Amino acid sequence: MSPFAMMENKLFLIFFSLALAVGFLSIAFVLIWVLHFREGLGWDGGLAEFNWHPLLMVIGFIFLQGIAIVVYRLPWTWKCSKQMMKLIHAGLHVLAFILAVISVVAVFDFHNAKDIPNMYSLHSWLGLAAVIFYPVQIVMGIAVYLIPVSPAYVRAALMPVHIYSGLFIFTTVIATALMGITEKLIFALKSPGYKDSPPEAVLVNVLGLLIAAFGGLVLWIATRPSWKRPSEPITQTLHDTSTSPEEIKVGTAVAARSDQESSVETRRRNGKTEESG
Amino acid sequence: MSPFAMMENKLFLIFFSLALAVGFLSIAFVLIWVLHFREGLGWDGGLAEFNWHPLLMVIGFIFLQGIAIVVYRLPWTWKCSKQMMKLIHAGLHVLAFILAVISVVAVFDFHNAKDIPNMYSLHSWLGLAAVIFYPVQIVMGIAVYLIPVSPAYVRAALMPVHIYSGLFIFTTVIATALMGITEKLIFALKSPGYKDSPPEAVLVNVLGLLIAAFGGLVLWIATRPSWKRPSEPITQTLHDTSTSPEEIKVGTAVAARSDQESSVETRRRNGKTEESG
Repeated sequence: MSPFAMMENKLFLIFFSLALAVGFLSIAFVLIWVLHFREGLGWDGGLAEFNWHPLLMVIGFIFLQGIAIVVYRLPWTWKCSKQMMKLIHAGLHVLAFILAVISVVAVFDFHNAKDIPNMYSLHSWLGLAAVIFYPVQIVMGIAVYLIPVSPAYVRAALMPVHIYSGLFIFTTVIATALMGITEKLIFALKSPGYKDSPPEAVLVNVLGLLIAAFGGLVLWIATRPSWKRPSEPITQTLHDTSTSPEEIKVGTAVAARSDQESSVETRRRNGKTEESG
Repeated sequence: MSPFAMMENKLFLIFFSLALAVGFLSIAFVLIWVLHFREGLGWDGGLAEFNWHPLLMVIGFIFLQGIAIVVYRLPWTWKCSKQMMKLIHAGLHVLAFILAVISVVAVFDFHNAKDIPNMYSLHSWLGLAAVIFYPVQIVMGIAVYLIPVSPAYVRAALMPVHIYSGLFIFTTVIATALMGITEKLIFALKSPGYKDSPPEAVLVNVLGLLIAAFGGLVLWIATRPSWKRPSEPITQTLHDTSTSPEEIKVGTAVAARSDQESSVETRRRNGKTEESG
């Protein structure tokens, strides 16, 4: 491995570890919030049912979605086939979506039991938009990239849209979570109120900062060209004397890619593209 | 101009016009909100003073910042010198910052006059972070890119950080505005309340969607590699027989750039980088 690639790997690991740490800390904070400061968890139409909403949103729609976005960039997955990484990418997103749906059902159930109107707030409008566009993005992704049916030029042409809309949905989810925190603290804290900064308000404000930081780290990791999974064209892999059966599978999986260049070229180009600007 | 470049120019114009339309619509909506539904504008420590807060945030910290971010990408500015475009980019950001500061002063003034605590909400924490990091970003940008003192390799190495942190601050400002809308509608609407969806609530929710859409359009425009201002190396410009004095200035201004490639090469490379992924 060249010194440049080694430094890039080290930098990636630092940022990915930071993202993991901040993500797990967010989950810990939301658990402390609902279990220690609020009513705990239950499925009774009451506040304990509402509490699944922030918990599952942070675990699923924020943390799992964030990991799904950057999963191709983990260097130790580069020996796995592209097809398998696509399955993991899609699987994590589907899991995140299931948790998001359960989380939305919890809040609708709670509203209906308490005769609170649904869908009146900007939080609910943007949140519902995200919950609708997310499966559209997943289905489009599976149709274009996972099932080997669309021609290579369609895959290549739609890739910038796939990346952008994925990151936009992720960012919208983060913003919606911050609005949800704002709503909940205003509604739930009475005396002392939100404006009196009781310990719960400070803890949940910090949770908001952690969520924003996790979003920022995922967006940074996902947009560094030099941290991309190198593409391994079939020609190069098949002519390599040390080719293992697994590597042949890798080569086959990426044969449909439109750009035929070596991983070294990708590294160089990726690095250069990032430097200029 | 090649058919590819013409199509890219047309696509850029469509997206830029959309961003302008959505931006102006946001300003119109916030004006209708404060002038028709709220107490109008004033500087009296009351609600009319508070109303400068959303108005100047939308005009300055959102609209002007968004335009400042994409200003290099306007094709009709490509004949202007890079140095002049840098001055316009920095000038728009400084103007946006001044409006943001006045907007923050308005809300602190209002809080102090009404004995409402400052800085207790997640909205205020994230908002203050943005108002602090924004001038840091501006000063760093001026020091590294506007004053010709830093070596080319430092400029090139810091460019990804400059772009990312600029877009991250912009996104944080949008998210903070959406949280501010949520707070204000909960506090201001009493009977009927926010949950009863009176016309004001619907108008301001739509304002929130418009702001999010403006953010999405600016981020799309700012991250298309093929819409980048082409770099014009001094060698190419000086040897052109039709070189005007202005073009020589352009060549001189970009002479410090690290990558020496023709604008055609940039177009091709930019397009290719975007397609692969």
